[in-house]
Amino acid sequence: MPKIVDHDQRRREIVEVTWRFIARDGIDKLNLRDLAAAAGFANGGLKPYFPTKDSILTATFGYVAAATNARIEAGVRGREGLSAIEAFAHEVLPLDELRRDEARVAVHFWHMALGDQLLAQVNAQTMQTWRDMLDGWLVQLLGEGHPDARAARDGMINFMMGAQAGSVLDEEANSVQSLLEQLEHQLIALRRLAETIG
Amino acid sequence: MPKIVDHDQRRREIVEVTWRFIARDGIDKLNLRDLAAAAGFANGGLKPYFPTKDSILTATFGYVAAATNARIEAGVRGREGLSAIEAFAHEVLPLDELRRDEARVAVHFWHMALGDQLLAQVNAQTMQTWRDMLDGWLVQLLGEGHPDARAARDGMINFMMGAQAGSVLDEEANSVQSLLEQLEHQLIALRRLAETIG
Repeated sequence: MPKIVDHDQRRREIVEVTWRFIARDGIDKLNLRDLAAAAGFANGGLKPYFPTKDSILTATFGYVAAATNARIEAGVRGREGLSAIEAFAHEVLPLDELRRDEARVAVHFWHMALGDQLLAQVNAQTMQTWRDMLDGWLVQLLGEGHPDARAARDGMINFMMGAQAGSVLDEEANSVQSLLEQLEHQLIALRRLAETIG
Repeated sequence: MPKIVDHDQRRREIVEVTWRFIARDGIDKLNLRDLAAAAGFANGGLKPYFPTKDSILTATFGYVAAATNARIEAGVRGREGLSAIEAFAHEVLPLDELRRDEARVAVHFWHMALGDQLLAQVNAQTMQTWRDMLDGWLVQLLGEGHPDARAARDGMINFMMGAQAGSVLDEEANSVQSLLEQLEHQLIALRRLAETIG
């Protein structure tokens, strides 16, 4: 079915152009005309692939989330417990230019998701995926049913989300070195939690 | 000088209407016409107070930051060390509807600040104020020059920023009870840091 493959390929190309555009220029300036030009389509040429700007945005945020999650999956392979949590955080924290671009897109995304039910669902799905993964590693670290596991999990996710915003809004306090030390502080807290068991 | 007082009072009224508008309807729908109507001005009547939409936004974000910081100042009075850090976090974390509204405004603000140098400066100022306050309390807790104080400080700020985003985007995982438990997890990490000194 070459035609369908081609269709999916084109959609992916448009989404890749879109997320780079958002990372560089933000979301307010995003319009279908510029996007079509940047992706090498005639004006109006995106319609067969994405009927509305909103449908491009939903696909784009889904794409960035999927790309992050694919990296996480590769990063944590063969690891468990605290080592897996550390590898996971390394894929989310803005430790390089790609991840900083993802962080910029995330900040714009949160803004959109506050007023858009569909985008909010894309975000909720990613958060649920992250919670499920962390739950597994925290059981490996702390055993089943540790009373502090939930607070540790949701605090770690909030720390990472804040680091995404902080690293692109407040770069001085969130250099790569600083982010790694902040992560180490969080991991030490988890290690201490594990040491106090039984 | 009753006229100047009146001018300042009017500016404050406009800013108060603006931040409630942003918390409820977001920032994309914000326009001077609706804002004037909501604040009880004729169309075009905001011009003497704010010449542009951007000048209203800058003032509004400054106002929200100042309101939060005034609450922090009152909350930490007479406290020091870990107790002050806890009181500080209580004023930032979205533990009630006012703070959740502030968190919504913050998320829209970050989005704007990524593309607006002036708004980015308003944000940087608030972050610097918070870092300075935390520095003082961490010295009380850990003594001068503790090697982990910086990572603890910036990690705490990122945790709080992430909790602001999380509580309005991902409410289920960030109930008031959950936020308090997440904060307790962060505070325990600081207490352990203090216990390992000397």
